[in-house]
Amino acid sequence: VASACRAGTDFPLQNLPHGVFSTGGAARGGVAIGDEILDLQALLELNLVPRSLGELVGVAARSSLNHLAALGNDAAAELRAGFVDMLATDGALRGDVERHAGLVLVPQRLATMHLPLCIGSFTDFMTSVYHVTAARRSRPARPLNDNFLHLPVAYNSRATSITQDGVPFPRPWGQRREADGSVVFAPTAMLDFELEFGAIIGRGNALGSRISLDDAGHHIFGYVLVNDWSARDIQQWESRLGPFLGKSFRTTISPWIVTATALAPFHVAPKPRSSEQPQPLSYLDSPAHRRDGALSVSFEVHLQTARMRATGIAPARIVTTELAYCAWSFPQMVTHHTSNGCNLEPGDLLSCGTISGPADESAACLFERTAGTLPLDLPNGEQRCWLEDGDEITLIGRARREGYVDIGFGRCGARILPAH
Amino acid sequence: VASACRAGTDFPLQNLPHGVFSTGGAARGGVAIGDEILDLQALLELNLVPRSLGELVGVAARSSLNHLAALGNDAAAELRAGFVDMLATDGALRGDVERHAGLVLVPQRLATMHLPLCIGSFTDFMTSVYHVTAARRSRPARPLNDNFLHLPVAYNSRATSITQDGVPFPRPWGQRREADGSVVFAPTAMLDFELEFGAIIGRGNALGSRISLDDAGHHIFGYVLVNDWSARDIQQWESRLGPFLGKSFRTTISPWIVTATALAPFHVAPKPRSSEQPQPLSYLDSPAHRRDGALSVSFEVHLQTARMRATGIAPARIVTTELAYCAWSFPQMVTHHTSNGCNLEPGDLLSCGTISGPADESAACLFERTAGTLPLDLPNGEQRCWLEDGDEITLIGRARREGYVDIGFGRCGARILPAH
Repeated sequence: VASACRAGTDFPLQNLPHGVFSTGGAARGGVAIGDEILDLQALLELNLVPRSLGELVGVAARSSLNHLAALGNDAAAELRAGFVDMLATDGALRGDVERHAGLVLVPQRLATMHLPLCIGSFTDFMTSVYHVTAARRSRPARPLNDNFLHLPVAYNSRATSITQDGVPFPRPWGQRREADGSVVFAPTAMLDFELEFGAIIGRGNALGSRISLDDAGHHIFGYVLVNDWSARDIQQWESRLGPFLGKSFRTTISPWIVTATALAPFHVAPKPRSSEQPQPLSYLDSPAHRRDGALSVSFEVHLQTARMRATGIAPARIVTTELAYCAWSFPQMVTHHTSNGCNLEPGDLLSCGTISGPADESAACLFERTAGTLPLDLPNGEQRCWLEDGDEITLIGRARREGYVDIGFGRCGARILPAH
Repeated sequence: VASACRAGTDFPLQNLPHGVFSTGGAARGGVAIGDEILDLQALLELNLVPRSLGELVGVAARSSLNHLAALGNDAAAELRAGFVDMLATDGALRGDVERHAGLVLVPQRLATMHLPLCIGSFTDFMTSVYHVTAARRSRPARPLNDNFLHLPVAYNSRATSITQDGVPFPRPWGQRREADGSVVFAPTAMLDFELEFGAIIGRGNALGSRISLDDAGHHIFGYVLVNDWSARDIQQWESRLGPFLGKSFRTTISPWIVTATALAPFHVAPKPRSSEQPQPLSYLDSPAHRRDGALSVSFEVHLQTARMRATGIAPARIVTTELAYCAWSFPQMVTHHTSNGCNLEPGDLLSCGTISGPADESAACLFERTAGTLPLDLPNGEQRCWLEDGDEITLIGRARREGYVDIGFGRCGARILPAH
């Protein structure tokens, strides 16, 4: 697949993420390669899968990948090795696939992507110190929570309202208090995005058991981009027990699950704590984790307004940030989540929270960037304190490391429609 | 069924709640009647179900009742009328059932109850003003949240760790800050119960749509008792975005879903607001709701310690309270939950939060009753500020109204095991 070798592709041979797609007919599992999708149902129907991999490919070809996730990362790695055999220049199975390329490769532009699996539970963490303190321009920093360096703070978010890249949604209604003290029910006036990154759980744990830090990576099937849309006015007025309707109207994820196996080369050491800072308690710390518990991934957010679209102006990059700004890693989130015996299930989503850095350009939501009063300037002269109808927000991400081919996550975008 | 006519039974002919049980073999759907369970699989196998009800009974006989819930309350009412025909003294189908009583009726004491359905999402509200302000004995009241009378405050809770009556669980571990400022990871030292009552969603709503207040009752399949176990030390230290690990180790529900149809006679007018209090916004208010939006149900909590059990002392009643103490009704919770377009799904659990009243005896958790410092006296001389290993907490509830036969909810109990 020539497009898999092009510089800048999200989906080189080193990636091979899993997703669920359709082309008019039934939804089925596929693997992204360059600009194409390897159609796993077609591989099976054409008898191009070696017998030893038949069962696994069958599971990965289903219309929902929960069962694949549940099989664990050894199965995912075995499957991946098989796909490399089919797609690599020197792959043992490449000849067969090449002869049937027209039947087993589907151009991504002709496919509709679906939610890749059923996300039973969605937990949203808050791991960026910059997001928490939100010291920006002339505004004073908020104090850091006293527990922030002791545990990854989190809340249960709503899983039913998660949709994939490309699904637009109406501006939500909600209750808010106006400046004059009156309380109204109206479409939100403070609609925001939040750039996040999430782990999809593979093997779960039994209720009452824990997942140790060094075992946590084996329970992560893969990763997706997450836009945790937020209605700040609804959120501010309702929140007494954490976020609820200010978030639950919609969350958008990228449709391709980049496997933990593909990201293995991008593991790096977490930023060490200073000697004055509290060190993590022993259940959240290990030599192996100190060596390579974190991931090297960078992200961007792009905004295109309705007027930009109508006048042919490309989306403007409004955020550039790095996963390194997060003070807690995904293995630490998994371990802490199960530290009380809470059971994670295959397909659960654990997101790291808004990935903000110290600079204005790395403020990963409008609340931090504009505070609702310092508008963001767009290339065509428009300004934004909050999102307006017709705005489209797209997240992208890339895992990068010296000596390795970059791998990407695909698009995570959605357009805002007028309120019902 | 003689036991269904005995005064004080939870399950008279007027109740007929749905549950899932097993007796050695596969789990299957049943209906509680007196001390027995009407075995729906057995009814089908013996051809005792009229053809017009066969499909519905088949759905209710499954090992998980999500599909039954999704069919809506007209289906549930039709099914109920069929069961009355089978079980009432003058029922048209009673003869057939009576002839096969030994095969279609299973004594509850011989059955193992299961979780009646898959609870995809669990939302916990906070609707008792007494729970929020927690004015008890010598302690000053906390101020009422400024939004409390404007909207039913809620948070997303964890659905995977819900188990049914009778399943014991170990004291959870967690992170907490000690009085000396040190942070430790240890078994909770402040384990508590919370008496709650929950609605199980029947028909859901599409993402982006809302459920109006007058339609909300049609989306509630039935009700269960809920013990929202809480580890107060974990909760106090972790909470910045609402409750998380301090709750997610376990929630216990009663295994029988008492249908909305069975509770229809127990609808009463919600307590009117005073003229100085804010009235609900129009989406949370209607003439029909003001007439009968609330339910008349009373509750008790019983505690039996290990020593009480060993010495033959009956469980002590430690809480007596009423659903009338809740300032928001279940229809209001459903409507508010979907007011931003959030989709509810069949089997979702919406709980009203701790049902505390003004008296010490109606404080529906230990945190309010003892504050950790004013111990509760038990009949055998033991005292409790928090729950200890071996303690067993059981909730019961009864819907009561002048002129109607009481109906109950069965047991919702669990014993605390030592920490792993």
